[in-house]
Amino acid sequence: MTREPAPAQSTALLTDQYELTMVEAALASGAAHRRCVFEVFTRHLPPGRRYGVVAGTGRMLEGLTEFRFGPAEIDWLDDRGIVDGPTLEFLADYRFSGDIHGYAEGEVFMPHSPVLRVEASFAEACLLETYVLSVLNHDSAIASAASRMTVAAGDRPCVEMGSRRTQEFSAVASARAAAVAGFTATSNLEAGRRWGLPTIGTAAHSFTLLHDSEQEAFEAQVKAFGPGTTLLVDTYDVFTAVRRAAEIAGPELGAVRLDSGDLVEQAGEVRALLDSLGNTGTKIIVSSDLDEHAIARLQAAPVDSYGVGTKVVTGAGSPTAAMVYKLVERTDDDGAPVAVAKNAAGKKSVGGVKHPLRSFGEDARAEAELIGVGSAPETEGAPTRELMVPLVLGGEVQAQHIGEEGVVRARRRHAASLAELPAAAKRLQEGEPVLPTIFS
Amino acid sequence: MTREPAPAQSTALLTDQYELTMVEAALASGAAHRRCVFEVFTRHLPPGRRYGVVAGTGRMLEGLTEFRFGPAEIDWLDDRGIVDGPTLEFLADYRFSGDIHGYAEGEVFMPHSPVLRVEASFAEACLLETYVLSVLNHDSAIASAASRMTVAAGDRPCVEMGSRRTQEFSAVASARAAAVAGFTATSNLEAGRRWGLPTIGTAAHSFTLLHDSEQEAFEAQVKAFGPGTTLLVDTYDVFTAVRRAAEIAGPELGAVRLDSGDLVEQAGEVRALLDSLGNTGTKIIVSSDLDEHAIARLQAAPVDSYGVGTKVVTGAGSPTAAMVYKLVERTDDDGAPVAVAKNAAGKKSVGGVKHPLRSFGEDARAEAELIGVGSAPETEGAPTRELMVPLVLGGEVQAQHIGEEGVVRARRRHAASLAELPAAAKRLQEGEPVLPTIFS
Repeated sequence: MTREPAPAQSTALLTDQYELTMVEAALASGAAHRRCVFEVFTRHLPPGRRYGVVAGTGRMLEGLTEFRFGPAEIDWLDDRGIVDGPTLEFLADYRFSGDIHGYAEGEVFMPHSPVLRVEASFAEACLLETYVLSVLNHDSAIASAASRMTVAAGDRPCVEMGSRRTQEFSAVASARAAAVAGFTATSNLEAGRRWGLPTIGTAAHSFTLLHDSEQEAFEAQVKAFGPGTTLLVDTYDVFTAVRRAAEIAGPELGAVRLDSGDLVEQAGEVRALLDSLGNTGTKIIVSSDLDEHAIARLQAAPVDSYGVGTKVVTGAGSPTAAMVYKLVERTDDDGAPVAVAKNAAGKKSVGGVKHPLRSFGEDARAEAELIGVGSAPETEGAPTRELMVPLVLGGEVQAQHIGEEGVVRARRRHAASLAELPAAAKRLQEGEPVLPTIFS
Repeated sequence: MTREPAPAQSTALLTDQYELTMVEAALASGAAHRRCVFEVFTRHLPPGRRYGVVAGTGRMLEGLTEFRFGPAEIDWLDDRGIVDGPTLEFLADYRFSGDIHGYAEGEVFMPHSPVLRVEASFAEACLLETYVLSVLNHDSAIASAASRMTVAAGDRPCVEMGSRRTQEFSAVASARAAAVAGFTATSNLEAGRRWGLPTIGTAAHSFTLLHDSEQEAFEAQVKAFGPGTTLLVDTYDVFTAVRRAAEIAGPELGAVRLDSGDLVEQAGEVRALLDSLGNTGTKIIVSSDLDEHAIARLQAAPVDSYGVGTKVVTGAGSPTAAMVYKLVERTDDDGAPVAVAKNAAGKKSVGGVKHPLRSFGEDARAEAELIGVGSAPETEGAPTRELMVPLVLGGEVQAQHIGEEGVVRARRRHAASLAELPAAAKRLQEGEPVLPTIFS
């Protein structure tokens, strides 16, 4: 039944069963072919956060081309009796042929920002719901947390090294999302391979413990990687280790890493010791359970870069962005568009296609998220910027959003969007969303 | 350089770069071939939790057979200059040939329980660190949260439906981990395919909104799936929808789903309405942002099953199990074992191979986690149970732990281990770990 060879790794079963059963029932009722508009948005930011960061768009588009039901998927659905024969035929032929617009990856968002708009038949667009949300909810949660960390770190680089504290493929995605939010490198090799991200890493405590002494371990590492390597100095006594590291590697020692204890105090003492030993060029990297608040405290200490693990890959307390994918418009039997919305308690939504613009004040800072329902928003003459960009047109993924280029563009977009926000956006303490969302 | 064909989907780059650079430096120093024992444990449970649940073991073993560096991986490492030529040769030939023992999947654990023990050369065992931790930390976090939910739900089934609120592959893993902890089904199709888990799902609000009226949507769904289907009744007015559902499907209506509002109050009112309409056999499923506490509150309401989403896939506030992978023993140049441990502030570890047993009191309830260091623990005559089982012997994965059988066994193990725990284990309020960990 398939027109094209099945993808090597289908993404089409990375979904909730009801997306397929809805297609079955809608094919039977005839409504499956109604033209629909679904929008992705969140009702609220995580508690106290002032902005969110759209991420995962490129990754979602990369997987979209593999969102096809090959013979293996069709056979399994058939064996299990998940959907009926006509639906299996529809799925075997499925290839998304509609349009997707969205906030450019890296863009900041507010509650109710329509970060993605999917336009296609009900059947085509409905099938993507779970997959699209999984990617965007995860990656946006990570990028939103990561952005607060890079803001806190100012000019000091943040490096992502949390792979072990999240699922193995979430780790790959997290490295990418952190890069969108300004992290300069990752420890994750698969992320390096897929998107060309710079990767880093030298040694763990086990390398020191493996050898008969710290002396032998340091000598082995310097011999293998040269004096410019980073030596981990807290396996036993930090100050003994720093003296030893400087002696073995000499003034060219690249860096020492501190991974435990009171980092603020230690960094100052280690800096003084390094300087007294003539290692004025040796950097200090810290990496013990850092989050944006710990980074902010460390800004006063002589630290050169931050290795961030658990807290970035788990979204610093908010591991999901709480985005939803809602039908806002569909055609009727005459092909005329009808705005639709549910009325469920506490989960009301606003029907109709949303047209967002960001408006700017006299200081050229962003002032509001203006959202027109069904048509362009009222701007009252304020300067504005378009937020929606085409991501998929007639089923064709726009190539600049995927692969390495996608990450580079997203990272640039994020930096530019952040720079436009009012200064309050960069405060770490809890607050309200930094831009009001105004519907018109 | 490879002896066997590369795996279709290598898992070997799902790792931190330093695992590979440590191998390089250890190959150069000669220490790479020292026989090592690494152990996985957590220093603490999430705040207030009384026990943890080991999960992911089977998934980790499934991926272990694909943890090989094929030509694509080797070429990339070479191009990037991540490691040197001799290391590339070692990696190309790499296949784990050591032993892995661990707590059976589904077993409960306490702080410092040695949930996994990896024995091999340094190079072989070191390479697995990040991958093993990624799988176990994620899946154990999900199962630990899920277990509290199934405990709270008692005899009522819990169904996992959180795929959209976590990364797309974490969603698959979460469905499996929730099943280990007693969830009866999942919405995630890929999890159904990989491990034979029962899958569920009928329709979302969008299906109702797609049609010209709720009446038409319900008719379409009942026509497609028969009266035994589950109708979602909160798109507009719940009570109108329940009457309509009962009228269209008749007394055979399978279930109604409530996804918003005050579920305790609504469930009672909906139950009364269904009964008054003659739908005494129609079940009530609830599914709005449930966690263990919400489930506990709903136990007094006439609810038949719980659909759990965000909270289970994000670990109910604790998305990682905080497990670490530490070198505890290695041989010296004469091949004699040496216990090793780091001394870092706040992160001290206990050197030497751990031998755990669970001891039982006169009431046949578990009493303590006894951990012998270097030899069997002192039991003082109490009845005990072995906790470690062989998972990999001489590189061979023990087949009963993987695939569908692995999940079935893990689920059974979890139920049995939970039943042994003191009654306090099942309290939801914050408390201490329910068993003391006693080293000897």
